[in-house]
Amino acid sequence: MSEFDDDTAVTATPDGLVAQVTDRWGIAGRPNGGYQIALAARALGAVAPFPDPVTLTAHFLRPPPAGPVAVDVELIRAGRAHATLMGRFTQEGREFLRVLGTYADLGAAAGPTRLAGSAPALPPPEACIPSHPPVAATAGAHSTFFDRLDLMLAPPGFVTAADYVGQVQGWVRFADGREPDVAALPLFADAFPPPVFAHVASGWVPTVELTVHVRGRPAPGWLIGSFRTRYLIDGYLEEDGELWDSTGRLVALSRQLAITRAAR
Amino acid sequence: MSEFDDDTAVTATPDGLVAQVTDRWGIAGRPNGGYQIALAARALGAVAPFPDPVTLTAHFLRPPPAGPVAVDVELIRAGRAHATLMGRFTQEGREFLRVLGTYADLGAAAGPTRLAGSAPALPPPEACIPSHPPVAATAGAHSTFFDRLDLMLAPPGFVTAADYVGQVQGWVRFADGREPDVAALPLFADAFPPPVFAHVASGWVPTVELTVHVRGRPAPGWLIGSFRTRYLIDGYLEEDGELWDSTGRLVALSRQLAITRAAR
Repeated sequence: MSEFDDDTAVTATPDGLVAQVTDRWGIAGRPNGGYQIALAARALGAVAPFPDPVTLTAHFLRPPPAGPVAVDVELIRAGRAHATLMGRFTQEGREFLRVLGTYADLGAAAGPTRLAGSAPALPPPEACIPSHPPVAATAGAHSTFFDRLDLMLAPPGFVTAADYVGQVQGWVRFADGREPDVAALPLFADAFPPPVFAHVASGWVPTVELTVHVRGRPAPGWLIGSFRTRYLIDGYLEEDGELWDSTGRLVALSRQLAITRAAR
Repeated sequence: MSEFDDDTAVTATPDGLVAQVTDRWGIAGRPNGGYQIALAARALGAVAPFPDPVTLTAHFLRPPPAGPVAVDVELIRAGRAHATLMGRFTQEGREFLRVLGTYADLGAAAGPTRLAGSAPALPPPEACIPSHPPVAATAGAHSTFFDRLDLMLAPPGFVTAADYVGQVQGWVRFADGREPDVAALPLFADAFPPPVFAHVASGWVPTVELTVHVRGRPAPGWLIGSFRTRYLIDGYLEEDGELWDSTGRLVALSRQLAITRAAR
């Protein structure tokens, strides 16, 4: 078992499903949103009759402290090819996360394929720059999240941002050698520094809602992530992401709505 | 009252909130997904303490026939600036739609603005082409949806699709003169023909999940819509959209996960 598998484990008890939020995926002491949605994906997946979360939407209600979690999963509808589920995640009766998702079997998906994009051509990971959280985000707490991932960012100047308010690209994998799978994609979809950091002074860009579309099962090895923001309006911004596996296949799209208050 | 307002009205009764799915927003006899999420937005909005649905996610479970709807809205959390709600929509006990959303007051939003895009420059509406549903979609049923909207598409050749599997752009407004508002944006976010029609023979591209981010309150007049698909993989596709108001302001982003089975 890897740390990721341990820390997203969901267990059936006489009182229902339970899990643990650990302090090993924190940024400035708050559990990363991608870690939370990955835990939720595993919980919904424990009930879903299909293996792949083709679309997951999480609404983040409050940062959960480390500790036990009561998990309530509703199987809303199970059809021949898709099943829709909802998850509620609470600590001592206080809900911190609500998730809605649809699961399918991507191994059985049969339909046309047409691609209008490909993985960005990046320098190899060893020529990229290890990601560190911005100074403001680390004040007062060690960000354990960055101990768990190898996150190598393409150098400044390599990424051209003409069409974007901000863009961040790079490589990501688990530091302990665990290979990526569909359960890990939601984590990687919220692992990169916010592209909007180029324009705002705040190190804290809270996510209101994050949606991940899992489009394929990743091959072993590094993933490439590409994240960008085009529209920052009155403090609200979208962050769009793509994750590509080591064979060059698109494995996830993500979009989140986030907030920042402070212009640089 | 406009047809849109009539057909998305939510009424409090001793048995709870009720609404009506009408047959006035149908495509080949099935109520359009944008109409469904607009009805849901109005239902959540009736309970939310803030006016603007900054993010709404709908999972479409089955096409609802015209008829009465039981509406169950849960206020999950209401904070100082955001409130998160969930809606269940059922007909005779059968759920056809589940929606999760967060509401805020965009009029009170205060934060930085940076834009890396603008509304596409299109020929005026009168120089565009009235949208008609594809032949396959109209077989056997009149598509009432297209009686309710003025939908004028940019001419083929005007839209360059080099970076897209498919792209559709054009103008949209209500045919009866009702002006756009935040309640109408979810409808307009699913009103255009699927960009993937360029590559698939099927006239029916069912939506699994649709997320709309409302980013501004639209000014009166035409809206410009711009929709594109970049990745069609084994029949699954994303459709990303932008809606711009008559003053050139971005008012919504949308993304849906949809399915097609038949390659052209």
